[in-house]
Amino acid sequence: MSKIRLGILGGGADSLIGIVHRVASQMFDSFELVGGVFNPNFKASKKFAKKIDLPLNRIYKDVDELINKEDELPEDKRMQVVSVLTPNFLHFTMAKKLLENGYNVICEKPLTTTYQEAIQLGRLQKENKSVFAVAYTYTGYPMIRQMKQMIADNIIGKIQKVDLQYYQGWINPFIHDYDKRKKVWRLNPEKSGISCCIGDIGTHAFQMLEYVSGLKVNSLLSDLNYLYDENKMDVDGTILVRLNNGSKGVIRTSQIATGEENNLTVAIYGMQGSLKWEQENPNYLYHLNQDRPYQTLKKGNVYNSDIAEDSVKIPAGHPEGIFDAMGNIYKGVAKAINNENAFEGEYPEINDGIRGMLFIEKVINSHKQGNKWVKL
Amino acid sequence: MSKIRLGILGGGADSLIGIVHRVASQMFDSFELVGGVFNPNFKASKKFAKKIDLPLNRIYKDVDELINKEDELPEDKRMQVVSVLTPNFLHFTMAKKLLENGYNVICEKPLTTTYQEAIQLGRLQKENKSVFAVAYTYTGYPMIRQMKQMIADNIIGKIQKVDLQYYQGWINPFIHDYDKRKKVWRLNPEKSGISCCIGDIGTHAFQMLEYVSGLKVNSLLSDLNYLYDENKMDVDGTILVRLNNGSKGVIRTSQIATGEENNLTVAIYGMQGSLKWEQENPNYLYHLNQDRPYQTLKKGNVYNSDIAEDSVKIPAGHPEGIFDAMGNIYKGVAKAINNENAFEGEYPEINDGIRGMLFIEKVINSHKQGNKWVKL
Amino acid sequence: MSKIRLGILGGGADSLIGIVHRVASQMFDSFELVGGVFNPNFKASKKFAKKIDLPLNRIYKDVDELINKEDELPEDKRMQVVSVLTPNFLHFTMAKKLLENGYNVICEKPLTTTYQEAIQLGRLQKENKSVFAVAYTYTGYPMIRQMKQMIADNIIGKIQKVDLQYYQGWINPFIHDYDKRKKVWRLNPEKSGISCCIGDIGTHAFQMLEYVSGLKVNSLLSDLNYLYDENKMDVDGTILVRLNNGSKGVIRTSQIATGEENNLTVAIYGMQGSLKWEQENPNYLYHLNQDRPYQTLKKGNVYNSDIAEDSVKIPAGHPEGIFDAMGNIYKGVAKAINNENAFEGEYPEINDGIRGMLFIEKVINSHKQGNKWVKL
Amino acid sequence: MSKIRLGILGGGADSLIGIVHRVASQMFDSFELVGGVFNPNFKASKKFAKKIDLPLNRIYKDVDELINKEDELPEDKRMQVVSVLTPNFLHFTMAKKLLENGYNVICEKPLTTTYQEAIQLGRLQKENKSVFAVAYTYTGYPMIRQMKQMIADNIIGKIQKVDLQYYQGWINPFIHDYDKRKKVWRLNPEKSGISCCIGDIGTHAFQMLEYVSGLKVNSLLSDLNYLYDENKMDVDGTILVRLNNGSKGVIRTSQIATGEENNLTVAIYGMQGSLKWEQENPNYLYHLNQDRPYQTLKKGNVYNSDIAEDSVKIPAGHPEGIFDAMGNIYKGVAKAINNENAFEGEYPEINDGIRGMLFIEKVINSHKQGNKWVKL
Repeated sequence: MSKIRLGILGGGADSLIGIVHRVASQMFDSFELVGGVFNPNFKASKKFAKKIDLPLNRIYKDVDELINKEDELPEDKRMQVVSVLTPNFLHFTMAKKLLENGYNVICEKPLTTTYQEAIQLGRLQKENKSVFAVAYTYTGYPMIRQMKQMIADNIIGKIQKVDLQYYQGWINPFIHDYDKRKKVWRLNPEKSGISCCIGDIGTHAFQMLEYVSGLKVNSLLSDLNYLYDENKMDVDGTILVRLNNGSKGVIRTSQIATGEENNLTVAIYGMQGSLKWEQENPNYLYHLNQDRPYQTLKKGNVYNSDIAEDSVKIPAGHPEGIFDAMGNIYKGVAKAINNENAFEGEYPEINDGIRGMLFIEKVINSHKQGNKWVKL
Repeated sequence: MSKIRLGILGGGADSLIGIVHRVASQMFDSFELVGGVFNPNFKASKKFAKKIDLPLNRIYKDVDELINKEDELPEDKRMQVVSVLTPNFLHFTMAKKLLENGYNVICEKPLTTTYQEAIQLGRLQKENKSVFAVAYTYTGYPMIRQMKQMIADNIIGKIQKVDLQYYQGWINPFIHDYDKRKKVWRLNPEKSGISCCIGDIGTHAFQMLEYVSGLKVNSLLSDLNYLYDENKMDVDGTILVRLNNGSKGVIRTSQIATGEENNLTVAIYGMQGSLKWEQENPNYLYHLNQDRPYQTLKKGNVYNSDIAEDSVKIPAGHPEGIFDAMGNIYKGVAKAINNENAFEGEYPEINDGIRGMLFIEKVINSHKQGNKWVKL
Repeated sequence: MSKIRLGILGGGADSLIGIVHRVASQMFDSFELVGGVFNPNFKASKKFAKKIDLPLNRIYKDVDELINKEDELPEDKRMQVVSVLTPNFLHFTMAKKLLENGYNVICEKPLTTTYQEAIQLGRLQKENKSVFAVAYTYTGYPMIRQMKQMIADNIIGKIQKVDLQYYQGWINPFIHDYDKRKKVWRLNPEKSGISCCIGDIGTHAFQMLEYVSGLKVNSLLSDLNYLYDENKMDVDGTILVRLNNGSKGVIRTSQIATGEENNLTVAIYGMQGSLKWEQENPNYLYHLNQDRPYQTLKKGNVYNSDIAEDSVKIPAGHPEGIFDAMGNIYKGVAKAINNENAFEGEYPEINDGIRGMLFIEKVINSHKQGNKWVKL
Repeated sequence: MSKIRLGILGGGADSLIGIVHRVASQMFDSFELVGGVFNPNFKASKKFAKKIDLPLNRIYKDVDELINKEDELPEDKRMQVVSVLTPNFLHFTMAKKLLENGYNVICEKPLTTTYQEAIQLGRLQKENKSVFAVAYTYTGYPMIRQMKQMIADNIIGKIQKVDLQYYQGWINPFIHDYDKRKKVWRLNPEKSGISCCIGDIGTHAFQMLEYVSGLKVNSLLSDLNYLYDENKMDVDGTILVRLNNGSKGVIRTSQIATGEENNLTVAIYGMQGSLKWEQENPNYLYHLNQDRPYQTLKKGNVYNSDIAEDSVKIPAGHPEGIFDAMGNIYKGVAKAINNENAFEGEYPEINDGIRGMLFIEKVINSHKQGNKWVKL
């Protein structure tokens, strides 16, 4: 089977997200990286292409040149999908041009810098029916997919409470010192938009909640923490939520939880049982029961659902990690491009990205109003 | 050394809390149970005394008789402290009479059914200087005391975020069925006061927060969950808090977290490090650090503080549990009666009980107002 | 119900094991400590009795006086059971005299210092049918009893492999220094018998193996470690075993596993499933299955067997520890004295102690022969 | 930088190990798969090449053709390294031919089927100085490399005890049924050599022991388990070992530990501290100390050594797994081919494979002699 021709925008040099996408795209022998724009500086872009031993003929100056030149290629040579790994404020422009020219897109999150932009992209995608994935990587973990499936299969019954946590501590060494703080781009509204903590990690928790539960957040009340008056960007926040099935919950996020690394946890409590999962130990899923011992499901076992097992490359007892999760999202995109998708939720779609932007705006809004309920 | 003469009100028959107090009182050879009123039914009370092989001569009809008859005894025979283990709505009357007659008191929580009653008890205790402990058992765990000491010693620096959870699932099998629900006394406002979940377990989390951090909650905003309109008692709630050092936090409580048993967790995040603890694995304390491996402290080791080590009866590697925690509280009370207390916080004091009642009222208040901030 | 009259030999002053036995005896309101010999020094013994506020009239000079004087008391005042907590080398003499005079006995482990002595005690006990418990405390944990019951109920099928570990590190700071080493009584053959590590902790693992599995060790091959030529006592050892159902296994013990506290683990692998348990987290039992998620059983739940639930004092989610485990053994002894035992294995019997002594001798024997198989 | 030209022998169709090697080779943009022999059936081989979209011009009938045809290519087109993923009994022939023709080799383990063959390969490799890696994948985990480095840096002092476990349960459903058993190739001596359990997983534990400790096993005594007389292949075994620094230890392996998945654990106890690691949670390393809290090191942190950090692609808190471990081994091979290796132990070398074969023979030998000590 011909590999899907992949281009990449951004992700050059020492980009962490760059290596994740490149590795993920190779995992199932489904994609071939053919070119792109790794850096706004053309020279740096070519240097990087050399470093990864990619021919220079399809390394372009910018996205416009990419589109023009690829357009001249015969259809069976042209890039089929482009991954947008640029800084956040460029996502919109890049994705818009790609959509307008008929490309499939994999876009890093957050999708855009405003909800309005996100809606525009959504409209475009609806029109031309491109495959459009937003890189909410954690939904690629097999046991998250197992959780989603078990909830869909009603194994824990009606959901009556949800609790999601995303705690990190990385901003702590910078936030207390005015000079250090100024150097953190995520704390600079011009580069990072209206939110730091909610925009960066709160959206992950929000998307995860809607992804695994199949429910929607109807309204929320948030309390953010900026720590210092002259700091204009949230570094911590707690968000009360109400879901469309009438139940309540809480999303907790922090970048000042000193010593925490990337502690995303998901707990969904149903009338018949509950499911819990931790990102730092992603190969385990805990199924709590009323009056029965709790069960620990592990990836790679026959008792898991088809989508969970399809997301695993190697038998039980061999840990898979974040690269493998992203690999599963690329796999989902490949299936979609080849019209092969078999399961729901094989990759996070553009609507997840749009909802994420809405969430950010509403959270900031609720806080600024003095912690009032706002509708989504 | 003469044992302290202990009386007990309530706790007869199959009372779970009764056995905890009896065992705890024996743990350090410091107390002798001499009599009491185990049951409002005098016959049942005597039957229970026989069952535990206690002489019947100091088994009384009621608290009034107890006070009258004990008063006739010479001072060196008279009960020195009385544990109040009756249903909640009787705590106030019992404790009031005991205080008015000069007894030291160990009272189960919640201290009373209203904040006003609690204040009255506080005033009485202040006047006569009785030793008065409120049975917030979890503060008796060695590693909670270690946590308190490390925070007091500034090891994690200024606290910048707190997160406490108290999740149970026991009410789930009852709450969804009107008839079953009616039979649960905790869901009956006449027996249980204005709150179920917050009153029963929320107060534990609140007291724990103030105990370990040394801080006070200044204001709060709560969102409670009643699940059904005709149910008048909260079974779940999330409470945003602001502390007197300017930091923020959250207290999360639930009795509908299906499959959770008694999952109280405490996380205190400071500028220099963080401390985390779980009630179901109480012999471990997790110390997170910026840029250093996280440490796991275990009870019974030389690196622990004096109060933590004084709360341990046997060397490292031998688990101690909830009975041992209560034993440490009784030990603290014995020391206080014998004027021997060496450490701060060796038993939870009446003020903890008063604050607890205030907390319950304010949480209900905030929720009823439509999730508004209220001051404590 | 009248409490059982308990005497204690040893366990005075700061004895750790003393406090364990005293607390354990109180846990179910079943025993009353009436006297004993807490110390070979009569003055120290009386001083200790005063400290724990015990009347001095039944504090005796030595075991002989105890037996003589108690004998003069009417039967309904006389001690019914005596706990022997003296140094190991005195167990035999004490227990022998007690048995010869008709007392029930609770004896610390190891039962004696030689197998021959143990056999003598066994013969005496058989003749006079005294209740005789050996304090293998860990068998008092509810989840160990659950494990035993599940194996007896054939839930994991035929046992095909066993693996027990008992790792400590406490001897590490002493063993490498000749002078420090000389001061450790466990490393002194005159005080400690023929073995240090195997005698002290290896026997626990061995007894646990036979207790939970219901099987017997038929033969063994051991490899011990003395670290230094001039050190005559083992501080570490691995023992291959063959069981009477034809299966094989291993017992691993160490006192030089630096940093380990009291890490006793039990793993029993059957044809239909497996069970694992760790002493430092005693309230959990792990049930592994072929092709099903593994289950975690926790104490205090309805799914546990009757004996496990009878060994629990308080509901699920409230940890119980080593004192509670010993309390369960005392409860078993009380039931036996009152002819009430309902379950198998409610306390470790004299035969467990005898087998333990045999085990020690055979392990040393196998090692001394150059790691040869020896029969038990 | 030009990618290294990689060929693969075996690993076609649904081969699990095939996908691991392909993904691993892509992880650092260092290798390009150019051809190979994926299957002894030429048609199947080509079919697989098509499936992964590899040009057919360098898909060969067999290793001989591969060598002949590649030889005709100019040096800068020729394969530089060939991964041997065929069934075990073919490793020797394949690797021998490759070495004789000057290729670098990555060979799956076990290296060969006999020690004699392994020695021959070793001699060849020594002569022509090819880079030769044996795929002991677990040595690619960052925290294993951290462990190795800490031991080399003497952080835990002289090693005084080692304990390694490799427990699986996968053979349990087959071993008890004669017909099912016959169908398992690992239980067929003609396909699998002289050992099943020791050959397949025991060697991993043995290699890991020597890798992390820097010590050598001098002698061993083994006890194997075949379960049934007519079964000629071991499915479980315990091996006592003595190391070249005078210390002792144990290696435990099983394929009948029902319910265990891939439970490889490593515990190294030193005079100054200890290190423990578990393959199923590979991103954590436990550092036990005398009289200090134990520390948990996690991958991706500044406190780790250079080799550990060089083995990580993404910051702390993002789990990496078995594919990433293999990726690190390929990275090590790439560095070696490019003469860039900076650390010791960046890939397992041929000597590890030779030692592994020696280990298997000695273990079988010791058991067959009646559990006698044998020298390595």
